[in-house]
Amino acid sequence: MNGTITTEKAAELLMQHDNITLLCHRRPDGDTIGSAFALYYTLTMMGKACRVLCSDVFPDKYNYLYEGYEPAEVLDWPVEYVVAVDVATQKLLGNLEEQYGMMVDLCIDHHPSNTGYAALTCLDSGAAAAAEIIYEIISRIGFLVEGKVAECIYTGIVTDTGCFKFSNTTPQSLRIAAELKERGTDTVPINARIFESKSKGKVTAEARLLSALEFYFDDRCAVMPVTLAVRQETGVEDEDLEDVAGMPRQIEGVLVGATIKEHPGECRVSLRTRGGIDASEIGKAFGGGGHFAAAGCTIEGSLQQAKELLLAEIKKHLPEEPR
Amino acid sequence: MNGTITTEKAAELLMQHDNITLLCHRRPDGDTIGSAFALYYTLTMMGKACRVLCSDVFPDKYNYLYEGYEPAEVLDWPVEYVVAVDVATQKLLGNLEEQYGMMVDLCIDHHPSNTGYAALTCLDSGAAAAAEIIYEIISRIGFLVEGKVAECIYTGIVTDTGCFKFSNTTPQSLRIAAELKERGTDTVPINARIFESKSKGKVTAEARLLSALEFYFDDRCAVMPVTLAVRQETGVEDEDLEDVAGMPRQIEGVLVGATIKEHPGECRVSLRTRGGIDASEIGKAFGGGGHFAAAGCTIEGSLQQAKELLLAEIKKHLPEEPR
Repeated sequence: MNGTITTEKAAELLMQHDNITLLCHRRPDGDTIGSAFALYYTLTMMGKACRVLCSDVFPDKYNYLYEGYEPAEVLDWPVEYVVAVDVATQKLLGNLEEQYGMMVDLCIDHHPSNTGYAALTCLDSGAAAAAEIIYEIISRIGFLVEGKVAECIYTGIVTDTGCFKFSNTTPQSLRIAAELKERGTDTVPINARIFESKSKGKVTAEARLLSALEFYFDDRCAVMPVTLAVRQETGVEDEDLEDVAGMPRQIEGVLVGATIKEHPGECRVSLRTRGGIDASEIGKAFGGGGHFAAAGCTIEGSLQQAKELLLAEIKKHLPEEPR
Repeated sequence: MNGTITTEKAAELLMQHDNITLLCHRRPDGDTIGSAFALYYTLTMMGKACRVLCSDVFPDKYNYLYEGYEPAEVLDWPVEYVVAVDVATQKLLGNLEEQYGMMVDLCIDHHPSNTGYAALTCLDSGAAAAAEIIYEIISRIGFLVEGKVAECIYTGIVTDTGCFKFSNTTPQSLRIAAELKERGTDTVPINARIFESKSKGKVTAEARLLSALEFYFDDRCAVMPVTLAVRQETGVEDEDLEDVAGMPRQIEGVLVGATIKEHPGECRVSLRTRGGIDASEIGKAFGGGGHFAAAGCTIEGSLQQAKELLLAEIKKHLPEEPR
């Protein structure tokens, strides 16, 4: 790992440089976009030339953060100072890795897995979002975080904490949000866009998945088959369905929720448990693994075959009597 | 309205009295239950005799707040001091109204619509939850809000703010949550219980409702029929389906979302809009009304008849060209 620095030092370095290139991670989310544009607006206000780059197109969902931003004019820039935000490894730069992977001057990140690929790294692995660290840096530069910059920071925090629901949420996450609200940030439309907006295809796919839920062992196990047909017919990509793995376990009384994604020749299984059942043990039986309450594995064969094998294994882990 | 008092005075009155009866509102939610039990545990710790009453059974969902509480032993209590929490009117006491409606000594509430039915009222209509006011009162009594009491307060706040998503969320709501987390409150299982737990019947009903979604006018209008059959076959009560009215408008591109609940001889319609369309105007066309983005009406006739009439009206309110 190269040198790690404080937010104070990071603020100082940003003040000293100009022509700053900000890099987001591939498949950009609200935290990397929010963090980059919070810095972009701040540095621009300071009269600095600045641009934001990402290997992938920013999702429309976050367009309130970047509307009006026109990166075209700055394509032939002098590369003077390169800052990566919320990017744990060079690989996550996507197709920007080749050009920029070895020349990141400063990385601002909150991932414990950060590889220290940058010359200097400002890392706070206790922060729920990179945006929390950016908030501190901008405050240290001497700006009150408000307006557009506040919207960027708030977006980063709620994206990574699931609107303060996840276990990574800290008192600091909530305090920053309190301050942003106090300074007039309208958080309601941001929450609505991030958490209450789904494509028609996703809604159709979810309805079909929920309709196909199967219950076993006195409703203590729920299995959701995700067939190739559902994905093809609804046009929903695999990555858009990543969050459905949590759905079966949300049902009252379900101790083991399993999502079985059909692929040619094999099935990918996501397991979610509660009530003291170790999901990673179930995953291990098929060469997989994971955490206590969330694990996964791949089982060869058809959906029907995978389901039968999986249910036989799950049965061993359920308590004898329904609770 | 009788006298209104500060949280300081409310704290003083609670300290002065004993044999305190705490009243919740009917169809109890996390705020009224959390507020009552936060006070119950605090007053009990002070050596006071105390009980919590509610016209309806507390939902299982909140049993972590009241487990171990046994109200049976205190049925023949002397009625010395009666405190209502989160109860805007006597009517909301349900079947406790007859006995207690006229003898509430102190009401602690955050509803602007509070009728002032109590002898004294401690009202903060700017608070997102009654639990926020209770937090202040307990702090003024001199206790650090932590442990079980903190879980009660947190539950009240997240219930009424939709986990900080709704527009009633204030900096203070977020700050109190930050303090509770700092004192070790494990908020994750509380969030999971309140926001990520559904009955099997509800999930089945939602799957059927989403599958039955109909799209009109270039997908700018989504209509969700809620038939009598779905409710009968899934065993889900009308009140358990109150929140489904928001679902059609969550779909990207939908400007008007309508939920049509079939009843014998008539249909009850919930309207949700965005993009500058006035839902109350659509509701008014059928003798209903409401707010700009959320309104309702009742239309006589079958589901099919109601839908046709409604769609004809909605069409008038949509912009000419798809946006």
